[in-house]
Amino acid sequence: MSELYQTVRDIGEQGLLKKLQSFCPRDIIGDDGAILSVDPAQKLVVTTDVLVDGVHFSDRTTPPATVGWRAAAANLSDLAAMGANPIGITVGLALPGEVPVNWVETLYQGLNDCLQCYDTPIVGGDICRSPTITVSITAFGTVLPHRIIRRSSAQPGHAIVVTGTHGGSRGGLELLLNPQLGDHLTITEQQALIETHQRPQPRLDVLPHLWEIVGTTEVAGMDSSDGLGDAVVQICRMSGVGAKIERSQISLPPSLLALVSPEQALQWGLYGGEDFELVLCLPFDLAKTLVERLGNGANIIGEITTEPRVILIDSNGKYSQQELSLTQGFQHFTSVSDISHDLD
Amino acid sequence: MSELYQTVRDIGEQGLLKKLQSFCPRDIIGDDGAILSVDPAQKLVVTTDVLVDGVHFSDRTTPPATVGWRAAAANLSDLAAMGANPIGITVGLALPGEVPVNWVETLYQGLNDCLQCYDTPIVGGDICRSPTITVSITAFGTVLPHRIIRRSSAQPGHAIVVTGTHGGSRGGLELLLNPQLGDHLTITEQQALIETHQRPQPRLDVLPHLWEIVGTTEVAGMDSSDGLGDAVVQICRMSGVGAKIERSQISLPPSLLALVSPEQALQWGLYGGEDFELVLCLPFDLAKTLVERLGNGANIIGEITTEPRVILIDSNGKYSQQELSLTQGFQHFTSVSDISHDLD
Repeated sequence: MSELYQTVRDIGEQGLLKKLQSFCPRDIIGDDGAILSVDPAQKLVVTTDVLVDGVHFSDRTTPPATVGWRAAAANLSDLAAMGANPIGITVGLALPGEVPVNWVETLYQGLNDCLQCYDTPIVGGDICRSPTITVSITAFGTVLPHRIIRRSSAQPGHAIVVTGTHGGSRGGLELLLNPQLGDHLTITEQQALIETHQRPQPRLDVLPHLWEIVGTTEVAGMDSSDGLGDAVVQICRMSGVGAKIERSQISLPPSLLALVSPEQALQWGLYGGEDFELVLCLPFDLAKTLVERLGNGANIIGEITTEPRVILIDSNGKYSQQELSLTQGFQHFTSVSDISHDLD
Repeated sequence: MSELYQTVRDIGEQGLLKKLQSFCPRDIIGDDGAILSVDPAQKLVVTTDVLVDGVHFSDRTTPPATVGWRAAAANLSDLAAMGANPIGITVGLALPGEVPVNWVETLYQGLNDCLQCYDTPIVGGDICRSPTITVSITAFGTVLPHRIIRRSSAQPGHAIVVTGTHGGSRGGLELLLNPQLGDHLTITEQQALIETHQRPQPRLDVLPHLWEIVGTTEVAGMDSSDGLGDAVVQICRMSGVGAKIERSQISLPPSLLALVSPEQALQWGLYGGEDFELVLCLPFDLAKTLVERLGNGANIIGEITTEPRVILIDSNGKYSQQELSLTQGFQHFTSVSDISHDLD
């Protein structure tokens, strides 16, 4: 049989493991677990994510290399969200025997392409049979104890910084699902949106700038993987505070504004999810320095308040004041097709 | 609606997370990842396992508490196999919305029941929608560098120790699938086999005895989760050595010998899998002391040899010599129903 058409069942678990070992450092293969060193001064941070075929990805919008890249990016983003630098990931893979071996290799290639940008090895995993392709990633990182970024420590009067634009991932998804929507866009604009969806960048690059600017000041925050609105609400809920967000300060990618109306773009910016930016709360003076340093759409979008409500304001008076609630964020047990219609 | 009949879809991701938080230590909930301390002198060991409905468990033989117990036990056994003590696990759960909330809570109860025996917390996880129930566990442990048990360091002349009986888990599974097979067994014998299948004990208890007995001598080994035969073959392959195993020295549980013929019991002992004992290679004098200390079926089953073949011998001359190959072990992409027939 041609190697091109081999399925996982054709080569079996051992055959597949052998092929995937080329993606892992040699010295850690072959035992029941991986062995990692943790810098004695640092805390270990662990985060885990499960991605399911037909729920988090589909053949229509997500080739296997993209599934891999996004899975790696989502987990590295969770580490960045806590201020941690990655030291390794494990991959648990459940899949039907009829999946082509090439699909699995391309998935691993996608994982590795993303991980290599951040010097992070795949340190182990598990492969098993399942009717549904499921990719479970657990990522490990380390952080100095005083640098841990928590959701629960946001303080009234602090600025809310976002590290980049929002809504692009949701726009890219829409374009993949309905390519004709992009007929009036340039190829560059189309590619920019699709790239934002398929190859998101975990914002580990923000951390060295952040530490340099804030010194020993504690920073609160999380990532915006479930939506910018959701992140602000979660931070406020965990910190027992509220927030005032200025609509016009939310950076939206130009390519998204070329695709849809400003109002639709803002909705996707707030609730689209999977932009993998950081949402950080820190004193205004430090926030301003950080935003200038980062550029590329980084901005102060509002302020933490004492009153425990999250309010979307419009300083131009064009829109009425609006209150955000958690139910507008992404909920895994609702249908994916419902998500964008919550606030239409 | 009565709480008894609530499904996961009824209460949503946030509702389910809230219920499951009672199983996790309070101080680590609510962030993108868990924060753990690693003793500076120790190495971090990470292991991961994916369990799939219909492949690793089924409603017929595995109530949710058992799925949870076995998932925790399998991962703690992987840590024990490397000489590591557990410090925490993460749980990635993918499941259909129609699964009863009670099923998920009972799964977590089963996980926790096993974990509590070893002071190990659930430190985080992920929940998402999927057509197939999938439980992905990643476990973390620590080990002093000189105590790491590897598959690749077995030495010719060393004894092969198993820490307990084999075949009981396979016998228990058979009894659950075909209860009438046990009609001639006492209730105690039936319960013993089913308990062996449903609530296996990871052999973390072996480690303190092992360290006391071996001092600084390196120990090779792994666990027998994929079968005792498979473990010996894997160790030999990774170490570039062979082994001679004496059939009569493989301890089989009395309840299994009451259920099936001695020959069938031995086949299940060698290839049944999921007994979660340790298979350790160490000098004969230390091996004898360890076996005496452990009791309960622990035994020296053979010797590591220079010639790279694994041979099953019979010192009574009753059976002809037999060579083991890896293909007789558990392969996830073959049908489960085929497994026990490989050598029938």
